[in-house]
Amino acid sequence: MTRIRFHQELDELKHRILAMAGMAEQAFDLAVQAYSQRDPVLCQRVISNEAGINRAEREVDEFAIDLLAMQQPMAIDLRFILAVIKINADLERVGDQAVNIVQRVMNMIELPASELPVDIPAMATSVRAMIRDALRSFIEGDPELAKHVLGADDEIDRLNHDAFAALSSYMQSEPNGAVQALDALSIARNLERVADHATNIAEDVIFWIRGADVRHGAGHHSVGS
Amino acid sequence: MTRIRFHQELDELKHRILAMAGMAEQAFDLAVQAYSQRDPVLCQRVISNEAGINRAEREVDEFAIDLLAMQQPMAIDLRFILAVIKINADLERVGDQAVNIVQRVMNMIELPASELPVDIPAMATSVRAMIRDALRSFIEGDPELAKHVLGADDEIDRLNHDAFAALSSYMQSEPNGAVQALDALSIARNLERVADHATNIAEDVIFWIRGADVRHGAGHHSVGS
Repeated sequence: MTRIRFHQELDELKHRILAMAGMAEQAFDLAVQAYSQRDPVLCQRVISNEAGINRAEREVDEFAIDLLAMQQPMAIDLRFILAVIKINADLERVGDQAVNIVQRVMNMIELPASELPVDIPAMATSVRAMIRDALRSFIEGDPELAKHVLGADDEIDRLNHDAFAALSSYMQSEPNGAVQALDALSIARNLERVADHATNIAEDVIFWIRGADVRHGAGHHSVGS
Repeated sequence: MTRIRFHQELDELKHRILAMAGMAEQAFDLAVQAYSQRDPVLCQRVISNEAGINRAEREVDEFAIDLLAMQQPMAIDLRFILAVIKINADLERVGDQAVNIVQRVMNMIELPASELPVDIPAMATSVRAMIRDALRSFIEGDPELAKHVLGADDEIDRLNHDAFAALSSYMQSEPNGAVQALDALSIARNLERVADHATNIAEDVIFWIRGADVRHGAGHHSVGS
């Protein structure tokens, strides 16, 4: 493979991972909308879209591994391909979390509505901004924006901690609402895990651009990813 | 690097990832023991060991990436190095889950003891067997044993589902035990995530040996990893 051809292939890899990212973002958005509207049709759409995300993940992975096998990419190109392999796995797991969310929503639809002391849509908006910024830092190769994403993760951990406290005291005062509260708590956790995936993506962008491994210490990492 | 030297380096990589595996297994075992004995000293040990696991992960990762950069490994060697990079990340997350478990245990120690309708140690024993088999399949390069691990994951999902049902009805009948029940539920989820990591490791072993990507369909995969 010529050097020019190799760089065309790297562009193609970037193109494919961004298509994969679009699918994961859409799954997340639909899941949050399904929660807000208690809409079983949206839940089903998220579930039926999952197979396509899994297929896209496999194809991106194979393409990246073939590139590694055919060329001996040096330094920054090698790090780019490794970053794509890792980002790909995180995006697929964002899709898994969207499925987990709608499974809880389908359970909630069956139950009488409760006024739960948690603002899931607000939490989802913060998490959505993290995914968007992490992906933009990848598209633009911008390690500063990626670092900004790492900082935002603390905010999500705090929101999730508050949700846990509020929902567990609610369960004690309103035992009849316990199942709804547990569903909401699961969704808050799923959102926190999506935020962890956004953090992982941001770390991979920094690793790609700077060659620095920012996990655990040099940068920022919270347990629970 | 000569071919012989390269194979010595691959052996060294295997040696290092197994040392990393030993640390992750120890963290898991200590966390489960901390739960059974409600022991704050064991909780602290898991927390203070985490930095060492994170450091080991970074070192294994750097060693693997250097090997990729220096040689152009073909086919099975390339897949082995990629499998190690992925297994390494899963082992580090097993360490994270051990920390998450002991954080819940420390919370439970502060609360009056409750008779919770969940057998965490039994669940932990099944998960432990999955980790052990996944690692043995890696050491022995045994894809059949790895496939056995994939099947065992369904059992864990079922146990976790049962724990969720039992603990949520318990919370409704015993609101005063709700916080303890939530802690136990979190621990059950953490165990399920460790099982997902064991599944990921088994999939990576199959990918390494057979060159087949067994995720989503060709093999087995459950949402929630």
